[in-house]
Amino acid sequence: MKTLIKDTMAVLPDGSVKEVSIAVDGQRIAAVGDVPENFSADTVIDGKNHLAIPGLVNAHTHASMTLLRSYADDMNLMDWLQNKIWPIEAKMRKDDIYWGAMLAAVEMVRTGTTTFADMYGDMEKVAEMTIESGLRGVLARGIIGVAPNGEQAFEENKTLFKDFHGAADGRITVMFGPHAPYTCPPDFLRRVAEAAKERKAEVHIHLAETKGEVENCLKEHGKTPFGLMEETGILDCGVLSAHSVWLNDDDIALMKKYHVRAAHNPGSNMKLASGIAPVPKLLKAGVCTALGTDGTSSNNNLDMLEEVRLAALLHKVDALDPLAVPAGEALKMGTEYGAEAVGVKDAGKLEKGALADIVLYNMHGPEWTPKFDLVSLLVYSAPSHSVDTVMVDGKLLMEKGELKTLDEEKILFEAEKCAKRITQ
Amino acid sequence: MKTLIKDTMAVLPDGSVKEVSIAVDGQRIAAVGDVPENFSADTVIDGKNHLAIPGLVNAHTHASMTLLRSYADDMNLMDWLQNKIWPIEAKMRKDDIYWGAMLAAVEMVRTGTTTFADMYGDMEKVAEMTIESGLRGVLARGIIGVAPNGEQAFEENKTLFKDFHGAADGRITVMFGPHAPYTCPPDFLRRVAEAAKERKAEVHIHLAETKGEVENCLKEHGKTPFGLMEETGILDCGVLSAHSVWLNDDDIALMKKYHVRAAHNPGSNMKLASGIAPVPKLLKAGVCTALGTDGTSSNNNLDMLEEVRLAALLHKVDALDPLAVPAGEALKMGTEYGAEAVGVKDAGKLEKGALADIVLYNMHGPEWTPKFDLVSLLVYSAPSHSVDTVMVDGKLLMEKGELKTLDEEKILFEAEKCAKRITQ
Repeated sequence: MKTLIKDTMAVLPDGSVKEVSIAVDGQRIAAVGDVPENFSADTVIDGKNHLAIPGLVNAHTHASMTLLRSYADDMNLMDWLQNKIWPIEAKMRKDDIYWGAMLAAVEMVRTGTTTFADMYGDMEKVAEMTIESGLRGVLARGIIGVAPNGEQAFEENKTLFKDFHGAADGRITVMFGPHAPYTCPPDFLRRVAEAAKERKAEVHIHLAETKGEVENCLKEHGKTPFGLMEETGILDCGVLSAHSVWLNDDDIALMKKYHVRAAHNPGSNMKLASGIAPVPKLLKAGVCTALGTDGTSSNNNLDMLEEVRLAALLHKVDALDPLAVPAGEALKMGTEYGAEAVGVKDAGKLEKGALADIVLYNMHGPEWTPKFDLVSLLVYSAPSHSVDTVMVDGKLLMEKGELKTLDEEKILFEAEKCAKRITQ
Repeated sequence: MKTLIKDTMAVLPDGSVKEVSIAVDGQRIAAVGDVPENFSADTVIDGKNHLAIPGLVNAHTHASMTLLRSYADDMNLMDWLQNKIWPIEAKMRKDDIYWGAMLAAVEMVRTGTTTFADMYGDMEKVAEMTIESGLRGVLARGIIGVAPNGEQAFEENKTLFKDFHGAADGRITVMFGPHAPYTCPPDFLRRVAEAAKERKAEVHIHLAETKGEVENCLKEHGKTPFGLMEETGILDCGVLSAHSVWLNDDDIALMKKYHVRAAHNPGSNMKLASGIAPVPKLLKAGVCTALGTDGTSSNNNLDMLEEVRLAALLHKVDALDPLAVPAGEALKMGTEYGAEAVGVKDAGKLEKGALADIVLYNMHGPEWTPKFDLVSLLVYSAPSHSVDTVMVDGKLLMEKGELKTLDEEKILFEAEKCAKRITQ
């Protein structure tokens, strides 16, 4: 299958924007700009008045939580978790997980996300969504070590790895998902680290999300969450660290040493009042810093362009420095750094040989006018829904606004039905 | 002209959401909920699966700056103003102001803004846009007292008041627009205050936007900007105070005493790294606090739902309090408080007798699913472009996505042309 995206403006790996044609052969980009004359495409997409970027990467989410969108907001964290979220999650069955994930898939494709890193229960249903939707998924079974089902969840993560790691032509990667240091005791984490190492799997974990978490960790273990992760061997596995808000210089040095990748979640951190991560410091230290939405009960959407915009805006005002995170750097956090963070190789860049995960924005409309700087327009002004074409692994998931793999009407209907049932 | 919006969900003044029909007779809402049986509508709008809110109020913008969108971003403030913005603004002619304002009008209508408070030059062209678009405009001639054209601008503001205050069936209000304490000396401000009082006009002014401004004001005048405004008589006029970021308790007491209304601009304050306004404190003190986008060279769009969302998110993380500005309060800042802030009486509420400025969101789509709490969905999740119907003063400016008063294609074309000319 060969596709030619013709005459589109495109954001290139060096940050420049040029008019090019992009040739896609199979799963990969065959050419950006210098398309061989004999390239005979099965499908040609008119890129005029469009902006192409590498697909957005949601480096931390809980897709099936879409079912809880708007169920409980504006509450204190523990009240919210204990009295609202956890009781409902306990009622979720496999088909809820599936339809919640499918609802997430519709939203992700429509807003230009091509890869997502997920952590939740019943992950084989999220794998099913990944296979059906055509998205790229980095899946981990969320494991709460202290919960009654902790051991079972650990086993399920091993099974998930066995059944799905590398599945769907390599679109699925499986990581281990110990939830957090405050829900998984050190010995449990040591066992997870061993299981991950045996399989050469990586680890997706929440670290240093709130000030209280770090204070308790210091009190209980005499170490910060990152210090504890080093001790338990988790950092040896390759770690995707969600949130990473409350960090000292030693933590940042550990992140750098072990090539920990941070999944920064500005929307969730703002809404839950968790704090402002030291993102300019992380970037300066050379820590790979990507972006995520977190689940939709703490965001409340999966709009990655919104996260890119928030990352660009929040750190400017926090540092009182209008150059803190420039537009181009924020966009890289949502694309190139995202692909690196979730461990997808050769992705996140529009260049020859890269995986063909490509998003096209239709630049017709007031927010895209006038067109002095297309990266600025995208990061600071554009509506997320101006995405109209989405390709993952060389296959079109949306073309000129039309979804190719998902039945949106059925999914909205089924998701609404599931949401009603679990909250009744 | 009578319009019936049938069977819509609606956000009512007490914050509750109910399914109602809304009857509009002439400029005003005739009924919300209990529509008389003999109400015979000329136009019926099907409100099913829609959410009605009072129109969004942009309490501080510079509409014609749309022409400079993406022209210069990610720069230090004075470098940006002196080397990029001011030289280009100097080249803007009347037709640039007009087409820039028309571009702004398209964006405002499409994203649900019904009223805007504007400050710029050649404001009779913005009045023209207001008349043609059907929007409600609160217009001030921006006056830089220290500039060579300061006296001329002051005169133009008087002419603007004479020619347009109360025009377009009352849709246009004119204020005086002294730019800021650091661009208008105290004696100049005294003369502006007198001219405003003579006419019973109010004042729209930038106050306490940056830390440096406040420090310089203290050094030069021994007073904060608000203290200086009291001394010059500006506060006696009724003041719409843009930004209002760096405030001490005395400033807040002055705002309360003189019923100063704050136009908070979270997007601009974040992008320009101006600082975080003490919004929870202002709200608690009972200071009317509305929202604005500022101009599109410091935002870079006119999307008021984005400002509502930013207001809800930013102050939570700043205060480390997830209840700091709840969704419902943020929405009021963008609607009811906005109408009060810009001095439009009987507006900003869906209730009998209020001006019929109404916006309908189409709730079909993943970000609106499932539907537990419609205010949460709107404030934290919805795409701004799910607005599909906009009414101002009882007249439809957009119906089911179709603009009724503006020729979008022509406007995008002309605006792009103007933008090219002034930057060449």
